[in-house]
Amino acid sequence: MKGTVGELGEFGLIRELTSRLTSTPAVRLGPGDDAAVVAAPDRRVVASTDILLEGRHFRRDWSTAYDVGRKAAAQNLADIAAMGAVPTSLLLGLVVPAELPVTWATELMDGIRDECQVAGAAVVGGDVVRGEVITLAITALGDLRNLEPVTRSGARPGDVVAYTGWLGWSAAGHAVLSRGFRSPRAFVEAHRRPEPPYHAGPAAAGLGATAMCDISDGLVADLGHIAEASKVRIDLRSGAIDIPSQMNDIGQAVGVDPLQWVLTGGEDHAILATFPPDVKLPARWKVIGEVVGASAQPQVTVDGAPWHSNGGWDHFGSGGGR
Amino acid sequence: MKGTVGELGEFGLIRELTSRLTSTPAVRLGPGDDAAVVAAPDRRVVASTDILLEGRHFRRDWSTAYDVGRKAAAQNLADIAAMGAVPTSLLLGLVVPAELPVTWATELMDGIRDECQVAGAAVVGGDVVRGEVITLAITALGDLRNLEPVTRSGARPGDVVAYTGWLGWSAAGHAVLSRGFRSPRAFVEAHRRPEPPYHAGPAAAGLGATAMCDISDGLVADLGHIAEASKVRIDLRSGAIDIPSQMNDIGQAVGVDPLQWVLTGGEDHAILATFPPDVKLPARWKVIGEVVGASAQPQVTVDGAPWHSNGGWDHFGSGGGR
Repeated sequence: MKGTVGELGEFGLIRELTSRLTSTPAVRLGPGDDAAVVAAPDRRVVASTDILLEGRHFRRDWSTAYDVGRKAAAQNLADIAAMGAVPTSLLLGLVVPAELPVTWATELMDGIRDECQVAGAAVVGGDVVRGEVITLAITALGDLRNLEPVTRSGARPGDVVAYTGWLGWSAAGHAVLSRGFRSPRAFVEAHRRPEPPYHAGPAAAGLGATAMCDISDGLVADLGHIAEASKVRIDLRSGAIDIPSQMNDIGQAVGVDPLQWVLTGGEDHAILATFPPDVKLPARWKVIGEVVGASAQPQVTVDGAPWHSNGGWDHFGSGGGR
Repeated sequence: MKGTVGELGEFGLIRELTSRLTSTPAVRLGPGDDAAVVAAPDRRVVASTDILLEGRHFRRDWSTAYDVGRKAAAQNLADIAAMGAVPTSLLLGLVVPAELPVTWATELMDGIRDECQVAGAAVVGGDVVRGEVITLAITALGDLRNLEPVTRSGARPGDVVAYTGWLGWSAAGHAVLSRGFRSPRAFVEAHRRPEPPYHAGPAAAGLGATAMCDISDGLVADLGHIAEASKVRIDLRSGAIDIPSQMNDIGQAVGVDPLQWVLTGGEDHAILATFPPDVKLPARWKVIGEVVGASAQPQVTVDGAPWHSNGGWDHFGSGGGR
């Protein structure tokens, strides 16, 4: 397949992209009509939308199109899992410059498709338009399987705070890449292609999680969202968080305390939840703090004190490199 | 409310936008969490995504932010109706430049909210990021109410072709605006703010429509999609299509045959459907042609002959002004 998307044209590109897709039994009507039809056996559907822009959320010189697709899909599917739902489907709105190679678009689609398969979902529709900046608008849908959605607002004093997945790996990989290095590969890979623990979201709902979200803005920031929505104070024990020795090595090499990555690095899409204190959590969950009290001024502390670093990203802030 | 979205920041803008929203009983969990939860009583959900870019799909000097919002929502909600479904909800991904006035964004949101209300739906979530080009990524969801979705592929020889809604009004309004005029207002308004007949989609499904779509690319082009998906030939009778006298006047003034607007103008989001020949259609439906035979080479003819004008828009083509 050669040429640019401008040469291929809108309908040709849509044909090329949809021809690569796979389906699942939940897909009642896939791409090609005015709209798709997806099973929603629970009689409710969980839905989330994210936008990613080239230059802000990904760079073509840092990530392959395939990895951009994997990451973009992962980010959105993780939001579904973080409600306690099972992802079923995904829609892709895509802005592409006319001079973009068709292969970049098809490899992006392959990445989105493969990440959907990891999560048990399928791409069911979308839209393609020409524009200057590559833009991905992804909407993911999911099914609650008769469990109640786990929101951010249910954390109660006494609950434990636990996570599963990866913390700070993407941020460490970003630090490596931004200094022009390509290794250690494990962290660079984690930045290029996060691995959200999709299964953990519905599992946490089944375990009685009282509040939940995925970590996209950073541990302290996302826990802050739970504290705010639940009107509670939460204390993290930094010593409870495992920092891999290789992450310490990178920290020394680039002059950054790796705790910074673990506490403020987003994009790994770990699943973060609060549970009643008597919960028996499977081994892959790590308890890292607790809800210390109700509060009119919700707050997250680390080892009992406010965390003074930048607690996350504001996409409009000047510091926002994403 | 003063200032730019850059001054207000991401979270401030999201607060401002979500504070303007209204809800419906179908909204089980609205904006503010990882994902929204919407009722899907049919156990299936209908979903469609569209992307709109400033300069390509709308112009700030031609349309108010409010009208851009109305139109963007209408375009997507019409896709849901065109499957025979009732729109329930909408998600908005929004790219905004930092220097955009906050009021532009809030008026856009007001327009989206109000169009959702017309269709019986509500905005349930979204994403906001900073970027150079104002971009709207809209996903609409809907419920089939135990009817089968009406796709493009069910048209059969002998079926009649009918539409309800407006044809060519937006194109005529575009012609007026592009020549620097602001009247006749009815057509300019139709270009700025289409009025899709949302109720007609589910009603057509109930009347036994065999194929259906909304007219977003133009009558001939969208009927071509039905012909292709259904593997049939379709003939339109141009004399059956009412051309308002004011549209004839505009055509004379700008030197365009108004039949061109009626046959190729998109964006009015009329509902177009095929029905069994013995159907009794309510008066608001207008029969304008029939499915004349099965065909390995699907084709749409006008008064028995191929239509030689540009049959619609290709977003990558040089002629694409949308």
